[in-house]
Amino acid sequence: MSEDTLHADAVTTAPRPPVQPLRLADGRLALLDQTLLPNEERWIDIDSVATLWEAIHQLRVRGAPAIGIAAAAGLAVAGRESTATTAGKLLRDVQTAHDDLATSRPTAVNLFWALERVMSGAQQFVATIGADAPADLLRQHLWQAAQTMLDDDLAAGLAIGEHGVALLRDGAVLTHCNAGAIATSGWGTALAPVYVGHARGLQLHVYADETRPLLQGARLTAWELTRAGIPVTVQTDSMAASLLARGEVQAVLVGADRVAANGDVANKIGTYGLAIIARELGVPFYVAFPMSTFDPATPDGTQIPIEQRAADEVRQFAGQRTAPAAAEVFNPAFDVTPARYVTAYITEHGVFTDPQELHLHTAAQ
Amino acid sequence: MSEDTLHADAVTTAPRPPVQPLRLADGRLALLDQTLLPNEERWIDIDSVATLWEAIHQLRVRGAPAIGIAAAAGLAVAGRESTATTAGKLLRDVQTAHDDLATSRPTAVNLFWALERVMSGAQQFVATIGADAPADLLRQHLWQAAQTMLDDDLAAGLAIGEHGVALLRDGAVLTHCNAGAIATSGWGTALAPVYVGHARGLQLHVYADETRPLLQGARLTAWELTRAGIPVTVQTDSMAASLLARGEVQAVLVGADRVAANGDVANKIGTYGLAIIARELGVPFYVAFPMSTFDPATPDGTQIPIEQRAADEVRQFAGQRTAPAAAEVFNPAFDVTPARYVTAYITEHGVFTDPQELHLHTAAQ
Repeated sequence: MSEDTLHADAVTTAPRPPVQPLRLADGRLALLDQTLLPNEERWIDIDSVATLWEAIHQLRVRGAPAIGIAAAAGLAVAGRESTATTAGKLLRDVQTAHDDLATSRPTAVNLFWALERVMSGAQQFVATIGADAPADLLRQHLWQAAQTMLDDDLAAGLAIGEHGVALLRDGAVLTHCNAGAIATSGWGTALAPVYVGHARGLQLHVYADETRPLLQGARLTAWELTRAGIPVTVQTDSMAASLLARGEVQAVLVGADRVAANGDVANKIGTYGLAIIARELGVPFYVAFPMSTFDPATPDGTQIPIEQRAADEVRQFAGQRTAPAAAEVFNPAFDVTPARYVTAYITEHGVFTDPQELHLHTAAQ
Repeated sequence: MSEDTLHADAVTTAPRPPVQPLRLADGRLALLDQTLLPNEERWIDIDSVATLWEAIHQLRVRGAPAIGIAAAAGLAVAGRESTATTAGKLLRDVQTAHDDLATSRPTAVNLFWALERVMSGAQQFVATIGADAPADLLRQHLWQAAQTMLDDDLAAGLAIGEHGVALLRDGAVLTHCNAGAIATSGWGTALAPVYVGHARGLQLHVYADETRPLLQGARLTAWELTRAGIPVTVQTDSMAASLLARGEVQAVLVGADRVAANGDVANKIGTYGLAIIARELGVPFYVAFPMSTFDPATPDGTQIPIEQRAADEVRQFAGQRTAPAAAEVFNPAFDVTPARYVTAYITEHGVFTDPQELHLHTAAQ
């Protein structure tokens, strides 16, 4: 199937993303609170930068692309919060919000990429209209910038799906954490090829690692796939070797929080072990992400900051103690998979087996 | 340090096991209910074979050696339950209990080994005293047989510890599930070298995989180690690759539920993946067990029955749903690690790198 045919198909079927976790309309931002899934679908109105900071930090919105879009929209929220009357003064308040939001989570590079992109666009915009121009012009510009980022991510997700589906046939795949629709604007990264394949009639079955400690696989991946009518089997993270050894899984598909210049991949804790197991058992290991996740400024995985999270995420569950209080806890939120374990990188620009090819397609700042 | 010195040390320090989860005294059997740990230490009086069957099936007593001893004592409980007045009639009731208890769990071979051993001893005993002899003679014999099995396991555990400690130096080890004191009569298998090393002044730190879905690592391993004053750090199962890649862990130590004739190891789900990761990252992978866990009658791992457990162990936690009800669940309780990933087998007879050496030391039936 040629590239043209793929795109023609996509247009013909007028694809709609399976779930959209961010609502951006009429100068308002709302987020689906992912900490309450799968038991409750509650939306949070983001009426302040502080509310958004908490939502990102507490993982109410999570997933590298979704965090990026939410942060971009957060600068528009900052514009609404500010009482500045001139574009120049408003720009300073937006800069403060930018600095604040940049501290919400350390690992996903999309957060910094999106904040920088919107900020530099805003600076250019103010340079054009003048610092004394009415602040409302900048406010409108910021909402438009957030909307553009969301639209671009939707297009990137669909393209990831279209490129990635060429790697799949009828059968099972395994994924880790949630790199699905709700980790993005609506198509997902790792799951985009699954959604596109499903829409085209491929018979796909997804095994989802539950993904301890916060169970994004069990809670979120299983939720969005069942909602989309795609069969899903949840397993504990420790079952991957047993499953892959059966020879029934055609590929492992994961997302990424940051891809370093050499192709090393920071992603949810457990990804590294899964990559080792997949290679040992001969199962292709694919990493799917939009180019905004690629960080050419970070030479390799050792330079990626890894967020350490609270001990009680591991030591308690639903308020119940699962380990003695005296036990220490090791709780890194992410790990780094060396590039040599990655069979291919799936991006909106195509599928690359050599990480050096990523440098030909770096995202615009 | 020579073998003699090791044993002399052990005698000098008059070692006592850190925790004993089975009480066998005055013709009664009591078990520490491990499902309630670490929050509550409750003992269950085993007054019937039915109570014991439930306790094994529900994992109130678990760990291959402990299951074996409990089952052996269960035949003595069956003796007490029976109203038979002759040894011959009592033997038939005990046989019924034997058949019943053999269905409680399928994977741990110690269960079958212990039941067979006590049963054949009882048959020999009745053949000696005669079927018309008073049933109480057989009752006494059965309690004595259970006590002997417990004493033998204590001795085996200590010997595993003494042999295994020679492989360790000051520093960290990683273990999976609970192959500790409470999985046995009191010394543990994987943790026996840690307890012996600790008693001798080695500075050991144990990383414990929490071990989903039932959290035996977080709940049980962390509980017994903190009780013994040994520092322990709990991590999710998915963190092993990150941890081992740091190069600070000297060895992975696990137990076994059954070791096949070729050295393949059935153990708690997750062991196989951990073994692959350990080998890839250059960390020695040791499997510790008493010879009653070695099953020369099972040629290789493909012949070991793997217990599949209920979906809601994965789909719920503490009564709270963690995955959509529509999601399927893959929940094997064990996996099989091929012998080629095992650096060495630690038994009461010594440390063997070649599984064929195990055949020189098979346990008596």
